Order: sequence, then structure tokens, then C-alpha cells
Amino acid sequence: MGEFELIRRYFLPLSRSGKHPAVLLGPGDDCAIQRVGEGLDLVFSVDTLVQGVHFPANYSPEKLGWRCLAVAASDLAAMGADPVCFTLAMTLPDADANWLHGFSAGLSEASREFGLDLAGGDITKGPLTLTLQVHGTVPSGSAIKRSGAKPGEIICVSGTLGDAGAALELLDLALPTRQQAQILTHYHAPRPMLALGQSLRGVASAAVDISDGLIADLDHLLEASGVGGRIDPDRLPLSDALIALRADATDLALYAGDDYQLCITLPENSLEALPSSVRDQLTVIGQVEDPKGLRFHGDSRPLRKRGYDHFGSQ
Amino acid sequence: MGEFELIRRYFLPLSRSGKHPAVLLGPGDDCAIQRVGEGLDLVFSVDTLVQGVHFPANYSPEKLGWRCLAVAASDLAAMGADPVCFTLAMTLPDADANWLHGFSAGLSEASREFGLDLAGGDITKGPLTLTLQVHGTVPSGSAIKRSGAKPGEIICVSGTLGDAGAALELLDLALPTRQQAQILTHYHAPRPMLALGQSLRGVASAAVDISDGLIADLDHLLEASGVGGRIDPDRLPLSDALIALRADATDLALYAGDDYQLCITLPENSLEALPSSVRDQLTVIGQVEDPKGLRFHGDSRPLRKRGYDHFGSQ
Repeated sequence: MGEFELIRRYFLPLSRSGKHPAVLLGPGDDCAIQRVGEGLDLVFSVDTLVQGVHFPANYSPEKLGWRCLAVAASDLAAMGADPVCFTLAMTLPDADANWLHGFSAGLSEASREFGLDLAGGDITKGPLTLTLQVHGTVPSGSAIKRSGAKPGEIICVSGTLGDAGAALELLDLALPTRQQAQILTHYHAPRPMLALGQSLRGVASAAVDISDGLIADLDHLLEASGVGGRIDPDRLPLSDALIALRADATDLALYAGDDYQLCITLPENSLEALPSSVRDQLTVIGQVEDPKGLRFHGDSRPLRKRGYDHFGSQ
Repeated sequence: MGEFELIRRYFLPLSRSGKHPAVLLGPGDDCAIQRVGEGLDLVFSVDTLVQGVHFPANYSPEKLGWRCLAVAASDLAAMGADPVCFTLAMTLPDADANWLHGFSAGLSEASREFGLDLAGGDITKGPLTLTLQVHGTVPSGSAIKRSGAKPGEIICVSGTLGDAGAALELLDLALPTRQQAQILTHYHAPRPMLALGQSLRGVASAAVDISDGLIADLDHLLEASGVGGRIDPDRLPLSDALIALRADATDLALYAGDDYQLCITLPENSLEALPSSVRDQLTVIGQVEDPKGLRFHGDSRPLRKRGYDHFGSQ
């Protein structure tokens, strides 16, 4: 039983148990949405990072502090939300003052940078696990869901893809080259696309953040929208450093995770109408189509999924 | 370095980092409060349960499903909030279908009972850890904080105390007696005092839920209010079953945790003005006083704290 099947079978039924009218959007998107009075929707998302699964056992506490908030905030970016605050539930093996000092410094820097205040939390003893819930707001009804993509629209991504995936094998380098250091920054200090997401409210028909890999996350978006799509691997935005370091750069851009860029759909003329400061952050990589499934340019067969699944059957 | 010192030193500074005007109340109370438009405040709280720390390794998944939501919802009760929804971040060692079936059944029952819809979540692989964040709402400004107690007011608790603490040594009984079974129910299936909390909005000057023990939690309330207090151990509400089973019933009622009753302060005439259906749920156990610290009736020395601290120095 895979992660998604597990959620569908055991937990989705609970999302409708009380039918609370204020819960506008439950599980299945980047964030949930709670209607909170006239004019404003609360947008929130929870993410857990487990040591040894989501970050190495000896990972720098400063970098972990930044990363855990960046990863969580990326879901707010994908909804186009204005950041407000977050909660932190921490399970720690012990109260190591050096570790805590570093973690809190990295988290504090990210907190200021993203405009997310710590609003509450819980600290318990056990194996190192971090759960962060981020809160943002949007004008009522304006959150960008995964489910709005329509055939004929174009598919765009922000930034460059594959860099964080390439960083994984460089994490232990003592003296990285300049290009290796550029690649490592994408992994250690991802920047959630909050301002871009906000600029796309009312413009993008659907959005998802790329955490599990472009193919896996775009597939979620297309499935939620009940449509299919086609992308051209030759049009993927790749950094010069990635091209220089890896012969399989395109494969990393398609399948590796942790980039925290946005993948969006919108009508082509909406892209052209965007201010150049926004448009320049986006690369057109394909289009939305009627037949379900995700295909490569020039190929009629749908792609195999290769996203990360914690409980995937091997 | 204890848990509270750890929070004060490393995390409280982050709660003011962005100074977001919508965060009305940050860490330190039962819940945080986010102002969300005209007329409504969002009240939320996050709690983590770790296997082997907060529940035994072989604990029934059905009971765990109920308990984890009840424990989290109790913080909403302490703020007087109307329940809306919750998120569930689960770290699981494996996808055991029997376990998941039981857990989801217990959680689902609690979800319907408390009126809390599942709004989102995350499932990751690792040692069994559950983090739940509950969301409720109150009319703007009407959440019951810990900080409003005033000298001269009375201190009340709901229900009976000490039962859950007495249950700890009965958990492995194959055939509990009727009285033992009554005690066990308090531990396995606590009922957050949501309706009572809502009835106390605009009436109670301060409230806290009793999760770490009466003395520890009342002490938090008095400290947050900048006052002291005096309680009479002879007036603590004890169940007949507890009195029958334990010679140290009063000690359990004072120091044992997991009861999830409410401890509140209010002017004596406000108690008398309450409908009898509400008043009958409360027992007066003492009064708020000017001098800091918590004392027993007839004793001038402040009590030693004995609440649970995950990282307490031994």
C-alpha cells in the first residue's frame, strides 16, 4: 500500500466527517483553506521532516532551521498566499545547546526573510522530527488551487530545475568548487517563491510547488484538474552549473525533488500580459491537453511516475 | 536546561521577529490567536504525541486515534473556542493496515464527536509520532487566555481529577473491575470540555486545561496573570472510584496529568449567575491572591512544582 492509497483509504473519509462549512478545501492540495469571516481565507499546510529521511543525520542545524521553514512556506507560495505565521512541533533526542542555538538562528533568519512569525509550538523528547504548519491568507476565493488547469493553457515553471537533486551527492564535500557551491545552495537554502505566487493570484489557473520532482508534482496538478498535458524536456530551465556538472541534467530536472520552484498553468495571453519582472521568472515547458496523462513532446505514450513515495511498494 | 527555559531562550525571540499585526497571541497560552478579518479570531494549537513517551508502545490504535484528537481539542476548550478542523502530521514506521484501520476508526469517532474535520496532513516514515494542530474560532477578542486572573476571584475546576493518573498502573489489566474500568475510561477516552469552555466565554477571566497536573497548570495560569493563589486540597473533586481504589487520591488529583479538565478563574458572583447546567460542572477549589506563588489553605509557604518537563534537569 503506497502513501497516497493509505491516505485515500484511512484518512480522506475523515475530511468530510463533520462537513464543517468553513473548511473550503481539505486534504489533497498544497494547502487547506478555511473561510474566516468576510473577505479573507486562511490558507495552511503542515510538513514533517524526519532525520535520516528528509535530511542527513549530521546535517547543519543552521541550514536545517532555514530549510524546514522554506519547505513549508513553499506550499503557501503555490497557493499565492500572503505569509502570516507558523507553528513548530519539535521532537528532540536531547536539549543540546549548540544544536539549538544553530537551529534557532537559521529558523529565525528564514522567519524574518519570509515574513512568518512563530505563533506556537510543542517540544517533546524522542527521535529528531520537525513538523511545521504555516499560515497565510488570501482575499476570499483567490487561492490558486491545483484543480483549475484547462486544455489549451500553457504549463510554466519558475527558476531552474534539478539543482537540488544534483546537490545530494555533493553534501559531504569539504572544498566544493564555485559551480558545486552554486548547486549546493539550491539544496541548503531553497527560497520559496512567495512573491511570485502572490503575483499569480487571479492569473494562474492552477499551481503546485515542485517538492517531489516536476513529473510527480505536475502529474498531481493535472490529475486534480481532470486533464492531461505534454511537456518538452528540451525546454526545461537548467542552470549553467548543472549543465557543466551533470550529463543527466535533464533527467534530474524531470525527476529529482527539493527544488521548491512553482509549476503553473495559465492561458498564453495571460502570460504575455504579465509585467516583465514576473514573466521573466517563468519558462514555458508545455501545454495542457484534454486526454489524461502526462506525455513528452513528440511521444504519444504517457510517462511512468517516478515521484518519491514513503510507503511505495517496491 | 528544562523545556521552558529551552523555549524561552531559543524560540520565543522568533515569535516577535516579523511583528505581524494579525498574530494577536503567540506562544505561551493553550492556543495562539490569529486575527482573521472583522469579527472573528482563529484559535489554534499544536500537540505532539511520541510513542513510548506519551503512550505505551503496544497501545491500542483505536484508543490512540481518539486520545490524540481529544488531547489537542482540550486546548481549544481552554480558550472557549468553537471547533472547526484539524491537521494530522503522522510519522509511521510502516503502513500496517490493521493498525491504520483501528487508528483511523478511533480518530474518526472523535472527529465526529468533537466537530473537528480533518483539513490536511502529512505522512512520513520513521518512529511513530503524531502531531495534530486543531483550529477553532471565537468572536473577536473573546478567547479566554491564561493571563486574566485577578486577586479576589475564585479558582474552579471541572469534572473530577486524578483518575487518568490512577489509570497508568491499570493499563495492562486483562480483567479490570467495574471501578478500575471507570478509571481507565478517563485515560483512554478523555472528553475535552468544549461546550463548557464555550459557555465560559465572557465569564471566566482565565482558563487552562489540566494536562500536566493541576498544580503545574494552575501555576502557569497564575504566572501568566501575574498573581498568586491558594487552594484547599480537601475541596478537590474526586471520583468515588478513585477514592475507593487509591489512598493517595488527593495527591493524584494535585499532581498527576492527563485529566483534560478545565481550571478557570472568575468572580464569585459570575459563578452564581451561571445557568445551573454549567455551574454544576464546576467545583470551587480556592481563590486568586495578590502575592505570587501557589499555596495550600492554612499554609503560607508556596508549593514546589512537580509538573512534567521533558528536558528537566535531574
